[in-house]
Amino acid sequence: MTDTQEMSGILTPVVTPFKADLSPDTDRLIAHCRWLVAQGCGLAVFGTNSEGNSLSLDERLALLDALVESGLDPKMMMPGTGCCSIPESVTLTKRVVDLGCGGALVLPPFYYKGVSDEGVYRSFAETIERVGDDRLRIYLYHFPAVSAVPFSIDLIGRLLKDFPGIVVGMKDSSGDRDNLEAVMKAFPKFGMFAGTETLLLDNMRLGGVGCISATANVNPAGLVDLYQRWETPEADAIQADLNKVRSAVQQFTMIPAMKRMIAHYGGDSEWNRVRPPLVEMPEDDAAKLISDLDALDFEMPGLGN
Amino acid sequence: MTDTQEMSGILTPVVTPFKADLSPDTDRLIAHCRWLVAQGCGLAVFGTNSEGNSLSLDERLALLDALVESGLDPKMMMPGTGCCSIPESVTLTKRVVDLGCGGALVLPPFYYKGVSDEGVYRSFAETIERVGDDRLRIYLYHFPAVSAVPFSIDLIGRLLKDFPGIVVGMKDSSGDRDNLEAVMKAFPKFGMFAGTETLLLDNMRLGGVGCISATANVNPAGLVDLYQRWETPEADAIQADLNKVRSAVQQFTMIPAMKRMIAHYGGDSEWNRVRPPLVEMPEDDAAKLISDLDALDFEMPGLGN
Repeated sequence: MTDTQEMSGILTPVVTPFKADLSPDTDRLIAHCRWLVAQGCGLAVFGTNSEGNSLSLDERLALLDALVESGLDPKMMMPGTGCCSIPESVTLTKRVVDLGCGGALVLPPFYYKGVSDEGVYRSFAETIERVGDDRLRIYLYHFPAVSAVPFSIDLIGRLLKDFPGIVVGMKDSSGDRDNLEAVMKAFPKFGMFAGTETLLLDNMRLGGVGCISATANVNPAGLVDLYQRWETPEADAIQADLNKVRSAVQQFTMIPAMKRMIAHYGGDSEWNRVRPPLVEMPEDDAAKLISDLDALDFEMPGLGN
Repeated sequence: MTDTQEMSGILTPVVTPFKADLSPDTDRLIAHCRWLVAQGCGLAVFGTNSEGNSLSLDERLALLDALVESGLDPKMMMPGTGCCSIPESVTLTKRVVDLGCGGALVLPPFYYKGVSDEGVYRSFAETIERVGDDRLRIYLYHFPAVSAVPFSIDLIGRLLKDFPGIVVGMKDSSGDRDNLEAVMKAFPKFGMFAGTETLLLDNMRLGGVGCISATANVNPAGLVDLYQRWETPEADAIQADLNKVRSAVQQFTMIPAMKRMIAHYGGDSEWNRVRPPLVEMPEDDAAKLISDLDALDFEMPGLGN
């Protein structure tokens, strides 16, 4: 991640390690964050891949405090702060601002389906007004397949108009290049992060600022390499290599697969745990995953040191 | 609701009133609960129609304490306690048990989509073990259109087998009579509540125990009447009358429509408010709703006294 005023580059939706009693493993999380930062990534903790919504509000507040206290730079952090209830979104977002984080990645309230743009607008307006801090930088988290509450072009435009300098960007996890293009055409200066590295090169060419992708947990240097060289003749070849690793991982449920990779390449089986309703990766799948990755000469250098 | 060991009859997913600052209006909630109980209904607070997931955990705990302190009988209560995170589900469910509530209506963790039965099973097993109290009575909350995480017959069977006397029933909000029938055929003694009164008579004939329906907020006596007379020759005619009121309400987004009805028939416009991402009922819709209800000679006797 480059250290400009707004966030850009590669951010990792950092997976969350759990102890045997399923409580968050703060020390392992800090160690993984340090490894990711050393590879050049920012930290989108408490995202979908972080099992962020499987953590209580109190757990998220405590983990965030611990990450900052550990010396990790809050300017590199874009924690997920969007809850179903406005009071909880406000509490978490306030903490993010008070700790000096670079931004907040904000899901819309995601329990009700088929809600109106007006209702989603009001939830953001209410949250922004209650946080009441000019340092707030909101990135809209568009993930229709999981949140089931999309951001339309109209809604984005209204938020940008009414909250300039506060609503500054978006993570587009639709996986739909057409949506990336439509949003970037409508709002050329928007801080757009692709939600998968398979669209990183497209996103940069469309005027985007980087990507926030699950696979940045396991292939951070690869993603950073494409971000740094996207304007070079090698870019398409780098993209093709990234896509091969992505394909090997996403043939399986990604969160347990990535945890398995960290466990395997870092020599630390504690990393395999997930919280229900997720389930750890079955052994047969793990064997195929590692075999497929070996065929790609995949490595995670420096992990577990 | 009849006061047997397990819950039965008509329960209301009680709508939650809000003050101008969008904080919960405890006094109005207590008054509405008293009116519902006087009509013969139990109280399924913090359900979908209660905007339960738009309330913070702390707000739900405080409201529940206030309801019980007000003298409402906790045995008549089946609060919604299923959160996305296990620690929060455990905190809320423990409180429900400690206060002596008749049951807990438990959503599966609802952020992740396409999760396995094994993962949902583990989330319930973990919650039940952590609550660790034989007084716990869990009703599974099956609402695939909103939670997007269904309970399969296999999953229900496994939970019944492993937690006998704890997992005792279900609210089936699928709106699908075939699903009601399939579950009741598989588990004839299951405490099945239909999720809409349009299936109340069907559910009773299939061996179910009642219904938990949005419309019980506005037509409680009508639903109770059918529950009490479902074995009489008048039952089909009563069902047909109930369906007319239901149709008038559900042509609109139901939560704001029901709040509008309480505001109108109770003479208290404070009731119109909803929390984002919901939006209050537009005036034009409200006019049509009341006009359609007038045509049915609809009333809410005793409300607002």
